[in-house]
Amino acid sequence: MEIYSNCTGSFVLEDGKVVDSILFEDPLNSNLLLEKGEQTPEEQKLLKKHQGAKITRKHTLLASDLHKMREIAFIVTKEKLRLAVKTDWLIIQTAASLDELDKTINLLSKRLREWYELYNPEISHSIDNHERFVEVILEKSKKELLAELKIKNTMGADLAQDDLQAIMNLAKEINELFKFKKKQEAYLEEVMQKECPNIKAVAGTAIGSKLLTLAGSLERLAKFPASTIQILGAEKALFRHLINKGNRPPKYGILHEHSLVAKASMKNRGKVARVLGDKIAIAAKVDFFKGKFVGNILAKEIDKRIGELKK
Amino acid sequence: MEIYSNCTGSFVLEDGKVVDSILFEDPLNSNLLLEKGEQTPEEQKLLKKHQGAKITRKHTLLASDLHKMREIAFIVTKEKLRLAVKTDWLIIQTAASLDELDKTINLLSKRLREWYELYNPEISHSIDNHERFVEVILEKSKKELLAELKIKNTMGADLAQDDLQAIMNLAKEINELFKFKKKQEAYLEEVMQKECPNIKAVAGTAIGSKLLTLAGSLERLAKFPASTIQILGAEKALFRHLINKGNRPPKYGILHEHSLVAKASMKNRGKVARVLGDKIAIAAKVDFFKGKFVGNILAKEIDKRIGELKK
Repeated sequence: MEIYSNCTGSFVLEDGKVVDSILFEDPLNSNLLLEKGEQTPEEQKLLKKHQGAKITRKHTLLASDLHKMREIAFIVTKEKLRLAVKTDWLIIQTAASLDELDKTINLLSKRLREWYELYNPEISHSIDNHERFVEVILEKSKKELLAELKIKNTMGADLAQDDLQAIMNLAKEINELFKFKKKQEAYLEEVMQKECPNIKAVAGTAIGSKLLTLAGSLERLAKFPASTIQILGAEKALFRHLINKGNRPPKYGILHEHSLVAKASMKNRGKVARVLGDKIAIAAKVDFFKGKFVGNILAKEIDKRIGELKK
Repeated sequence: MEIYSNCTGSFVLEDGKVVDSILFEDPLNSNLLLEKGEQTPEEQKLLKKHQGAKITRKHTLLASDLHKMREIAFIVTKEKLRLAVKTDWLIIQTAASLDELDKTINLLSKRLREWYELYNPEISHSIDNHERFVEVILEKSKKELLAELKIKNTMGADLAQDDLQAIMNLAKEINELFKFKKKQEAYLEEVMQKECPNIKAVAGTAIGSKLLTLAGSLERLAKFPASTIQILGAEKALFRHLINKGNRPPKYGILHEHSLVAKASMKNRGKVARVLGDKIAIAAKVDFFKGKFVGNILAKEIDKRIGELKK
């Protein structure tokens, strides 16, 4: 058994295979020790663990070491990948899963309605909201519902218990999905608060997480200029403009979902999106470099500038 | 209060509005009684219920009756719609919901994998089956799983309890959906057995219900010739053939999913689909007219003819 060290860490080799390893916690300091010919703390730890191992080479790289180096490179790369997983990745995954949950719930709700309408069409037509509809039919029987709506002659068929049960099972499942969605939304809110409090304060949880998704990571979002953030999500319209000069460039992308943009007059919407883009760019930089919370100040500035626009 | 009867049933009117009604259970007999000027059983029932009501008109239609007739027509139409809901509609809805469940589960499973791979990529890559994957990660911890796979250096990041919980919640939800899917499949099996035992015996539950969906109802499927059933689901290829004579006509549609077609040699597939189409056409007719169970005989004939093809 031998202990081998290079600039990344110390590795215990047995018959040319890596059996244990500690990567340097403090590479600069450890490299310095290696160059001086001293033992690093990592080597000392490994020596204690693997009694009888010899320290054979220090900070050297020979051609014969290549196959060892390959294995070591694997370990280092894996470790790097492991550490590259940052919380913004979790935000992006959560936002994407919420998006897909929405699609799922919509698809299944439409199916439930079509199916349930064989049994009780009047109720389905009287409630537009999917969530409410599912709750109502789980809660009350057909008789109760028809009595509430004062309908005497329903077009719905009478179904056998088994047939009705299959429909109600689907309703229960959709109800579960609605509850689950709320749980995931609460989690997303929490992570955003912890990781990107400034973006959350300016853009909100939903739009903030979508901007992160579109950018790919918090780092990339932090490096975008305000004008890019302003039109994130409108790439199609942007390229249409670049190819065909006749089309105007887009004024906003995903930001059109923001309540301030939606509330603004048609004339002012582009300007409001610009203001939001400016402040989100600042918020993203502050969040990325783990600065203090300035979200409330940014939000106030936005309000002020939008107030000026209205004059 | 007056009691009014026409060819469809008896209606109690108060101030020109329908307040109660009984549709004729036996229209021919009841109409005969009306023509003779006698009371129908329905009228007798209504008379008992609404003491003091007068029978004013019988089987006549005056211009002044039109607004009453309109309301009555509504009731009759609703009743007809109500009775038009047959079990084959339930089969179609169940099959469609299963189809959408499949899509949903796939979508969410892919998301789960992408998300979970931040935490433990090796496990996700080692299990291809979504259902198995979900079960495994719910059952065992990362440590146990890595020990089983003998992986020392994982690329997966360590996650905080909250972050991991959000992933596990998604896994639980998908697991529920898998269980729900099985329940619905069992129900579909049951309804098919009750309503279309012959189609089920020849085509199987999955393909049988898809054929019903493509046809729109059991009645339509029963009226289709065997050659139409053979290529149901290949409408696109059929029209491509009709427009562009160069393309060959399709040999099978949804039937390509049938194990007998899949097992057959490329040369024989069209012929096998033809045999299946023939027998499914017979099975559909027997099921529609509620004939005796001949599914086992049809299945034997199919086996025999496919045996002859191989020679």
